[in-house]
Formats: sequence, structure tokens, C-alpha cells
Amino acid sequence: MAGKRVGKSTVAFARPPVVVAAGSVVGPMEGKGPLGSEFDVVKSDNVLGEGSFEKAEASLLREACEIAAYKAQVPMSRVDFLLAGDLLNQLISANFVARDLGVPFFGLFGACSTLVEALILGAMAIDGGFASRVLAACSSHHEAAERQYRFPVEFATQRPPTAQWTVTGAGAALLAESGQGPVITHATVGSVVDMGLKSPNDMGSAMAPAAAETIWRHLQDLGREPRYYDLIATGDLASLGKEVAEDLLRRVGVDVSGVYDDCGRMIYSPGQDAHAGGSGGGCQAAVFCGPLVKRLKAGELRRVLLVGTGALFSPTSCQQGQTIPAVAHAVALEGPGRGGEG
Amino acid sequence: MAGKRVGKSTVAFARPPVVVAAGSVVGPMEGKGPLGSEFDVVKSDNVLGEGSFEKAEASLLREACEIAAYKAQVPMSRVDFLLAGDLLNQLISANFVARDLGVPFFGLFGACSTLVEALILGAMAIDGGFASRVLAACSSHHEAAERQYRFPVEFATQRPPTAQWTVTGAGAALLAESGQGPVITHATVGSVVDMGLKSPNDMGSAMAPAAAETIWRHLQDLGREPRYYDLIATGDLASLGKEVAEDLLRRVGVDVSGVYDDCGRMIYSPGQDAHAGGSGGGCQAAVFCGPLVKRLKAGELRRVLLVGTGALFSPTSCQQGQTIPAVAHAVALEGPGRGGEG
Repeated sequence: MAGKRVGKSTVAFARPPVVVAAGSVVGPMEGKGPLGSEFDVVKSDNVLGEGSFEKAEASLLREACEIAAYKAQVPMSRVDFLLAGDLLNQLISANFVARDLGVPFFGLFGACSTLVEALILGAMAIDGGFASRVLAACSSHHEAAERQYRFPVEFATQRPPTAQWTVTGAGAALLAESGQGPVITHATVGSVVDMGLKSPNDMGSAMAPAAAETIWRHLQDLGREPRYYDLIATGDLASLGKEVAEDLLRRVGVDVSGVYDDCGRMIYSPGQDAHAGGSGGGCQAAVFCGPLVKRLKAGELRRVLLVGTGALFSPTSCQQGQTIPAVAHAVALEGPGRGGEG
Repeated sequence: MAGKRVGKSTVAFARPPVVVAAGSVVGPMEGKGPLGSEFDVVKSDNVLGEGSFEKAEASLLREACEIAAYKAQVPMSRVDFLLAGDLLNQLISANFVARDLGVPFFGLFGACSTLVEALILGAMAIDGGFASRVLAACSSHHEAAERQYRFPVEFATQRPPTAQWTVTGAGAALLAESGQGPVITHATVGSVVDMGLKSPNDMGSAMAPAAAETIWRHLQDLGREPRYYDLIATGDLASLGKEVAEDLLRRVGVDVSGVYDDCGRMIYSPGQDAHAGGSGGGCQAAVFCGPLVKRLKAGELRRVLLVGTGALFSPTSCQQGQTIPAVAHAVALEGPGRGGEG
């Protein structure tokens, strides 16, 4: 037996899988944000000569995977599994990338929590002895997502201040059973939480309770304080959802101030007119696989709790009056120097 | 280390996870088919008082999960993970079921291969020591799928003979680290195959090459002949795709005659006007979690290779002129009496 369960929802990896390399690719707006210089590739436009936003998204995701494999000098034929997903209906970005890469493929959907979902299942596959190397990847594309979930951007529909801006970007992490890089020591798998919110223009508030629940449970399961981590980074609650999550945690006696930030808040500057901040599976994927992995490798960050958050709605479910359920999954990472806890 | 890799794409489970119980729920048309008496529940209509086809689908999926847990006398609070998906955009059936059941949740999308994808990842989680019990589940709903993928059935659009009939149904299997029932000894994870076909009204032909590839690779990796199995059951190639798969396998020297059938072909009788046969994630899920698990438990079947097949397209990808990529995953099951191969 490889791993073990710790508490209600957390698992510990016996031989913590290593993030040996990561690739991040973003669009021009993300490149102009505060993290712009830390992504591997910043595209100069959102279509990339692909003829459609959807095809452009697949191109971003493929490039992120290729960069991760290239950095590790691992040919695709030696990657055992690709675990990937995106926001588009039926995961068409991930499907076409899986076809192009030729790697045995598990398609995942956890909305904006997909990258962390992929990291967890990939880490289980490696620690369980079923794989030596896996790619965990996720993408999103602003124009493709907006026309699918809300309105085509050409409509110029006015968006409320609570709305988030779907990131054009992708990230891919190559996990391996050994090598240099931060290791995944634990994972906490989230249950679906639904507080009855209904607005697809306020996903941060819908996801915040799931994020708070998973962070709380992770800390409970492992008997840790928030300050055990240098950074707790939720997926894309953005400014508003981040405040809600902080408040919910404070009410149960958990003070995350000073160590908590949100990838959706980090990726744009206030002047970029992104409303509450970034969202989309590509937001956390690009921020983790770019800046955060770089900082973990450099020792600027030693212990990170990465919390993926997903709003599990569709336009159909919203139109039928359903609420927005949400989920949050977490992985605990430790940078080189501290090693795994085994 | 728990599992191990065998050949290029196959993994072997050290302590084969057990299918301790399964639940299957279908609509009225499926109840009138040749397998009708072997499902746990046959509904008398397709809406179930839920107010929409989509909500009805979630209801089917939830009931299948509850039946599986009830049969095993396992409360939901003791199920470690739910691995589930469906065909609806953003997996809304699975999301709402996950919310209602309160079980830590991994959303999966492999189109009609989702049940087998869930069985594989669930078996890895158990054999790896990360879970004691998991639910693997999938659903589809005829009217909900048709209006999303093609046309609302109220349009009465004429369908070509190659078209398949999306099954209204759901299946859920409860896997555990020990107990009575068939065990999952091996899994073969598929790569995405794309032969350039483009018609969403002929998915069987699009998926057949992926099915043939995965069956061939599974047999190669384990050095087995098709007759090792009492039954090789693909997901939903239906009549036409089944013939294509048989032909492709024959060309590489693999003769599956006498042991090969397809869940999409099995679920309807020729007189039911289902064209080429059944499809949808609920097709294989209901057929496996109903008739096949019953026959495995009864010893009528001893060794089964269950091959999930998924057509990984969306209406958007088709409208943009893209081809239909496909994937197939396989799990090898052995009924009680033979036990696992360890």
C-alpha cells in the first residue's frame, strides 16, 4: 500500500510525487498583468492564427504541455498519462490536445478546480505505482468561455463589478516519481457545497464556502495552522470571493491573514478592468505552473497549499433556476530543501 | 507500491478492488428491451416529475448511487470518493448528485467511456491505499442529450440509420478494498484516436478504431487471446461500429468472434426503432451495473473485458469542421471463484 488516509478527506503520499517541470502560456492581457514576466510564453493575440477561439485554446494547452515535457527533457512517449480538462463543453480543448500528444488520457471536469483535481489523481497514480510520469493540465480562453457561458464579447454586454474575467491561458505540470522540484505531500478532496447562490456573474461568492470548507478540513485533518504554509492560494475566487472566504474562515477561528492569496486576484492589476479578477481553469493553471512553481523551485516559497475552486454550473442549469454548486480540492506542496514528509 | 505497469498502457492491481455492489436505473424504452428484467429499476416515464429532462437525469444517477450503497449496506458517509460524469455540458447531472450525496467528488468526462474511466481511477485510488470505498457512476438521458448535441426531439428531425439512440439510464458501481463480488484485475488506459470522421450521426464508426486499438493493446500487454474472456463488451459502438471494430481487429489477426458484444447493441431489440443501437454514458453504465454485474456475481460470466468508448466531440467542434476524436479504456474483471491474479 502506498498512500494513506489522514482524517476525513485528506490523503498522504508515501513517496511524494515531484513536480519536475511546468509550462505556462497566457494571452496578451495576462501578459500585461503583475505576473506577466513569470509565464513561459505570452501570446500577442487571442486567436493565434487558429481560426477560432476554441482552436486557439487547444493550442495554448498543447504548448503548455510541450513546454513542461521539454523542460524535463522527457519525450511525450514516456509520459504515462495525461490528466486534463477545460471549461469548454465536452472538454474539446483537452480532447484535441490528447489526440495530438498521443498520451493515454483521462478527461477531467472540475471547472476551475480541474488543475488541482488532475494533480491529485496524477499524484495518486504515481504514488500507487501505476505511472512514472504524468502530465496534469488545464486551460481556459476568455472569448471562448464568455460566448459559451454568458454572451459573445462582441455583444458588449455590461458586466457587474462582481463578474470575473475568464483568463486566456493554460498550465501543465509534469509529475514524476523522482527528480528535482517541489513535491506533493498531501491532498484534500472536496465535497460539493451549495449555499443557494444563483448568479453566474458572482462565482467568487458561490465558490468561497467550498474553498473555506476545504481549507478548514485540510488544516483539521493534518493538525496544522494556516502559518504552516508560506502561501495558501485559492483558484479563482478573485477579490470578492477571497474576502468571503477569509470571513468564513475567521468565523470558525482560522486566521489566514498574511499567508492567503487568490490566483484570480494575483493575475490582473486593478487598472486592467477585469472587475473582481481572473477566473477560468487556465487562471490557476497558468499561475501555478508559471510563477508559483518558479518560486517554489527558487526557494522563495517553501510550503504552499494550492486550493482549486470550481463553480459547477452550466448555462442550462442556471436557466432552469438551479443554484450554483461549488467544489474545492487542495494539494500541499513543499519546495526543495524541506523534502517530503513521507 | 501497490500496482504495477504491464506493457505500454496496462496496469495490474496488486490487491484487485472488488465490485461489491452496483445499481442500475433506466427509462421505459430501455425497460422494454431485451435486458429490461435485469435492471434494478425501470422508470415509467422520462421526466420523473422533475420538471426537466436534465433534472430527471440527475435523479436517475442519484438513485443508481443510492441503490449500490444500499445493496452493500454502506452509508454514504463511508464512501471515500465519488467518481462520476455524464454527457451534459459541465457535468451538471453528476455535480448535483455529488452535492446531494455529500461524498468527496472527482468529476470525469470521457463521453460514453466515463464509467470505465471512473472504474479505473477508482480502482487506482483503492489499490493505492487512498480510499477504502469509492462509487463509480455515469448517466445519460435521451431527450436531454438530443437537444444538447443534435436537435430537440420535438423537432422530429429525421435520423439516418447510422445514428444511435441515447440511452436514458444510469449505473453506479461501489468498489471496495475487500468483499464479495467480481474484482478488477487490470486496466488499459486508451490514447485518443482520430480517423478523420465527422458525423455526429455515426459515432460508432468514429469510436470503433479506438475500441479496436485498446482491445488489441490490452491483449498484447497481457499476452492474452480474446478467448481468455467469456465476454468482451464495448461501450456503445452499436451494430455498425461493432462490425467495424471486429473487422479492424481481424485485420491485425485478432479474432473476437463468439466472445464479443456491445452494450449499445444489447440494450435494444431490433424492433425498437433505435437505429444502430444505444449510446450515451448511461448505456454501458446501466448494462454493466445491471446485467453484467449480476451475471458475474452469479458465475454465468467469469472473465469480462469491459471496454468504454467515448466520442470526444461537441456541437461547437463539429460546427467548426473538426473531426471526432475517440477514446477507449478497458478494465478486466474476474468473477468470484477465480479470484484476482494479484
